[in-house]
Amino acid sequence: MKVDGQLYRTIWLNDDKNSVSVIDQTVLPHRFVITQWHSAEDVADGIRKMVVRGAPLIGASAGYGIALGMLHDPSDKGLERSYKMLFASRPTAVNLRWALDRIRAALLPVQPCDRAAAAFAEAGKICDEDVSNCSAIGEYGRSLIKQAWDATGRSRPINLLTHCNAGWLATVDWGTALAPIYKAFDADIPVHVWVDETRPRNQGASLTAWELGHHGVSHTVIVDNAGGHLMQHGQVDLCIVGSDRTTGSGDVCNKIGTYLKALAARDNQVPFYVALPLSTVDWTIDDGIMSIPIESRSPDEVTTISGHTNEGELCEIRLTPEGTTALNHAFDVTPRHLVTALITEYGVFKTTPEEMAKLREKQFCTVCGI
Amino acid sequence: MKVDGQLYRTIWLNDDKNSVSVIDQTVLPHRFVITQWHSAEDVADGIRKMVVRGAPLIGASAGYGIALGMLHDPSDKGLERSYKMLFASRPTAVNLRWALDRIRAALLPVQPCDRAAAAFAEAGKICDEDVSNCSAIGEYGRSLIKQAWDATGRSRPINLLTHCNAGWLATVDWGTALAPIYKAFDADIPVHVWVDETRPRNQGASLTAWELGHHGVSHTVIVDNAGGHLMQHGQVDLCIVGSDRTTGSGDVCNKIGTYLKALAARDNQVPFYVALPLSTVDWTIDDGIMSIPIESRSPDEVTTISGHTNEGELCEIRLTPEGTTALNHAFDVTPRHLVTALITEYGVFKTTPEEMAKLREKQFCTVCGI
Repeated sequence: MKVDGQLYRTIWLNDDKNSVSVIDQTVLPHRFVITQWHSAEDVADGIRKMVVRGAPLIGASAGYGIALGMLHDPSDKGLERSYKMLFASRPTAVNLRWALDRIRAALLPVQPCDRAAAAFAEAGKICDEDVSNCSAIGEYGRSLIKQAWDATGRSRPINLLTHCNAGWLATVDWGTALAPIYKAFDADIPVHVWVDETRPRNQGASLTAWELGHHGVSHTVIVDNAGGHLMQHGQVDLCIVGSDRTTGSGDVCNKIGTYLKALAARDNQVPFYVALPLSTVDWTIDDGIMSIPIESRSPDEVTTISGHTNEGELCEIRLTPEGTTALNHAFDVTPRHLVTALITEYGVFKTTPEEMAKLREKQFCTVCGI
Repeated sequence: MKVDGQLYRTIWLNDDKNSVSVIDQTVLPHRFVITQWHSAEDVADGIRKMVVRGAPLIGASAGYGIALGMLHDPSDKGLERSYKMLFASRPTAVNLRWALDRIRAALLPVQPCDRAAAAFAEAGKICDEDVSNCSAIGEYGRSLIKQAWDATGRSRPINLLTHCNAGWLATVDWGTALAPIYKAFDADIPVHVWVDETRPRNQGASLTAWELGHHGVSHTVIVDNAGGHLMQHGQVDLCIVGSDRTTGSGDVCNKIGTYLKALAARDNQVPFYVALPLSTVDWTIDDGIMSIPIESRSPDEVTTISGHTNEGELCEIRLTPEGTTALNHAFDVTPRHLVTALITEYGVFKTTPEEMAKLREKQFCTVCGI
């Protein structure tokens, strides 16, 4: 998507073919900095320090991490070393392991002297597939936004609400929840986005606001408390959020607070869509509330907050009285009956057993079951 | 309630009988400072700068403001001047006008030389009535908490969730939503409070956490996004919130985000109580969502935040990209059907037409209608 009028991905191979560039997300939204990675160590360090975040982007980064590692030591031992180091950089990230396994499987049959080239090719493929999936999600979602616009007689902009950042910064390009919005915007459908600030890490107020603003999409930041009130007053036409993990029945595990917006959407007859690549669906689980373990993060994320002063200095402040304890669950589960439909790279699917079965068929070969 | 083991009200007449002390709420939760007021000007300034906040406390402060004014100029002209100056300090506060009207009506028939004494007496009465109302709310609410505790076989603490600050800092003592919790705690019923931080002004994370902590009540701060997840997992036994304005049918206008918690409570069969003095009920309106105008405050409250650094310095930081716009509605309306019952100084009333009619009878003489 665009930054200051220029098209970017979040990660790309440089023209020198032996270094990779990424947008440093630790300094957004206050500074736009491109960082170069020259080695697997650089990549592992970048993942650890959250220079890149978002499951698809972490996977793509890991792919390039192996490739950079192969430039220096393409032996089996070197491959194993890069794999382990990258895996340790964020061991809970499902996409990280998936990308590492995929690229290792592709490299093992290849002669060491050809591995770097093969690894760069495979990492490039991972990126392109992600872009293609997100673009497809965007196209399917755009048609939903267009329907809503048509339903108004094309008389006014369509108001969307999103939570957290499931935008292009979390992927290689387009994003998941924001892809339909970018596609609609690019197709001249007038849109306006209510951006939940998304406490405690404020990914909405910082990243979503930043990327929408730079691409030119009209948006307004609101506190997480405000969405229900806006829906009561007809100011939200549809909600689109992302998903960190989706159960086989259609329950959605996403950033904490998603469930509250889904409740408000149902109470006010606002469609509530979840945009996701099929890779986030875990077909082995059914009941998300009972089965998905929720990460509990540091209470400091709630009791303190960082940002830039007017003078541009980074400053951390305390929000609670000394000694106050806080609890910080990172995700919640929105039960399937609150989800209008899932927007995937294969189309839009309701969360009924019949539609979920159809979605499953898209992912697995019905003959061999794999 | 207690601060460092000592009992306090938020406002009191000093022994010198010509000055008033208040807890300076602008420096909480980081510092505990008592401020003295010697004149009506001091009071108007304090209300304007939010040294005191909360409708009941603003009313009580205005009462003392007139009394301090009478020490200096007890003439009709002096009374009018104090009235106007105090009224202008926060013209939208309903309780401010109510207290000023009450005290002016009490003073007009009194000789100027006796007005200061009469005003201090009336201001004291306003305070004592507020304490008595809040204490009654607390007693009625305590019995609800006790029932919940009994229902567990007294086997574990009762988990309550509250939003914003409807505690003793917003009143003269006890508070409204927190009064039942203090009464339960003082009666050795084990309680634990989930404190919504309450963006954007963070009254929960700062004031509610501070006052519960100083009185010794177990509590944990959570982001506003978290309550639904806790309710899904059985970690909230009941919700109690306050009300800024209540309609004759039982719709509740309270701090933005209250509605989302009420939705989650209903979805998880958690009782949702609203504690309020009858003075917040506006019997002239029925549909809160349609009829109550919602104050829109400065976007800066969303895009920037202030707090203390580790070094104790006050620091303001920016949370959003430069130039990002925000919308900042201060309140939302929770429709009556999501409210389990209202806890008032006259008892606990469901929001059915029959029960609301009974509640109304408590406030108005049924013979003369006043």
